Amino acid sequence: MNKLYLVGIGPGGEAFMTAQARAAMEKADVLCGYTVYVDLVKGLYPEKEVFTTPMKREIERCRKALEIAQEGKTVAMVCSGDAGVYGMAGPILELLGEYPNVDVEVVPGVTSATSGAAVLGAPLMHDFCVISLSDLLTPMEKIEKRLECAAVGDFVTCIYNPSSKKRSTYLEKACNIFLDAGRSPETVCGWVKNIGREGQESKVLTLKELAKEQVDMFTTVFIGSSATKKLGDKMVTPRGYEAK
Amino acid sequence: MNKLYLVGIGPGGEAFMTAQARAAMEKADVLCGYTVYVDLVKGLYPEKEVFTTPMKREIERCRKALEIAQEGKTVAMVCSGDAGVYGMAGPILELLGEYPNVDVEVVPGVTSATSGAAVLGAPLMHDFCVISLSDLLTPMEKIEKRLECAAVGDFVTCIYNPSSKKRSTYLEKACNIFLDAGRSPETVCGWVKNIGREGQESKVLTLKELAKEQVDMFTTVFIGSSATKKLGDKMVTPRGYEAK
Repeated sequence: MNKLYLVGIGPGGEAFMTAQARAAMEKADVLCGYTVYVDLVKGLYPEKEVFTTPMKREIERCRKALEIAQEGKTVAMVCSGDAGVYGMAGPILELLGEYPNVDVEVVPGVTSATSGAAVLGAPLMHDFCVISLSDLLTPMEKIEKRLECAAVGDFVTCIYNPSSKKRSTYLEKACNIFLDAGRSPETVCGWVKNIGREGQESKVLTLKELAKEQVDMFTTVFIGSSATKKLGDKMVTPRGYEAK
Repeated sequence: MNKLYLVGIGPGGEAFMTAQARAAMEKADVLCGYTVYVDLVKGLYPEKEVFTTPMKREIERCRKALEIAQEGKTVAMVCSGDAGVYGMAGPILELLGEYPNVDVEVVPGVTSATSGAAVLGAPLMHDFCVISLSDLLTPMEKIEKRLECAAVGDFVTCIYNPSSKKRSTYLEKACNIFLDAGRSPETVCGWVKNIGREGQESKVLTLKELAKEQVDMFTTVFIGSSATKKLGDKMVTPRGYEAK
């Protein structure tokens, strides 16, 4: 069997990569992935063959990686964050049945929910949801229903893909769902842009302010629960509800 | 300012640690933490001073780490998984105001949701919730409400602390909340025990089977969404709802 590693490299540079992720890329003959992510690692392995595809060509990318492995080379498919969170692990496993010589191993990485949380303080200290606002593959009603359930359940909510050119109003819509469900306009929220990369920025703000905020697709957004607090410049959710 | 690093070391051994986590422990004069976690790293740094406290003595542990930093030493507080997910980042930041000489940096790690998901396949490929069944610091009604919202929102749900001696029936209760909300008894679920450590075990099973399963506190449980599938021996959630 030929190995295809699905490697989560974390949010940015080398500092966030696990030893296991490094070892998998080391063993690979070919590094595959979305151009931007492969660019983050190819400097570490200048001698390796690379295969990249632009954004939105995910299925083509997956098939190519599986074909290269099927033909006998060891492949590392490089994903930002964790390969199993809105990454390539799912599509690869769905296609795997067609490539009988390939053995897949998912190498977990630090996903934006936790790397972004670390920048803001400790917003995810208690139960949380992760929701993507991208409606490319998911009907908007499904996304809205989940936002509503996250609001009603008083979860801390981490939002991936909060915006894009075509979806510039989606974050406002999401905030309004929380407000309509009774979450206070003063709820502590935060966002982090370019986590772990050049140009990292972050902000702690209220839900009411977040609804008016312009963020881009490289931003991860955090909506606090009713218990989340601002301590100094940090966003912190207490671990529990009882007095300590 | 003296530095206190909150270091997420991932689920187990060295392979899951990021370069940044290693660098923080390297810089520390003292390694603090729950005995079991410090034992996982002290072999890497045999020369370092260590301070450990047993389970449930978290606040004492945090105060001690802050005191050592306040007095001038660099401290690494070692947490399993990610320090910001049911870890020590919250309590440390809540106490920080009392220790004016200390500067805290959270170093994110691979949390059980994603390291467990990697073992099972790709269960977290779409929107998900993370819920702890521990009612030590959270009223049971709050936990039940969240499980219900996770079920109604058709989230994939990752359950931390699914069981303990005193809570041996809680996982069954959680499964019943999903069943009562209309989630099919055939829903694909999974669990992983001792992720990344000696004795790692995992199983993919149905929701109806999960309700009868005995798991321990070292196990992370995954309840699929209505779209989650079993492919071979893997648990996989498709990325979207539209035909590819």
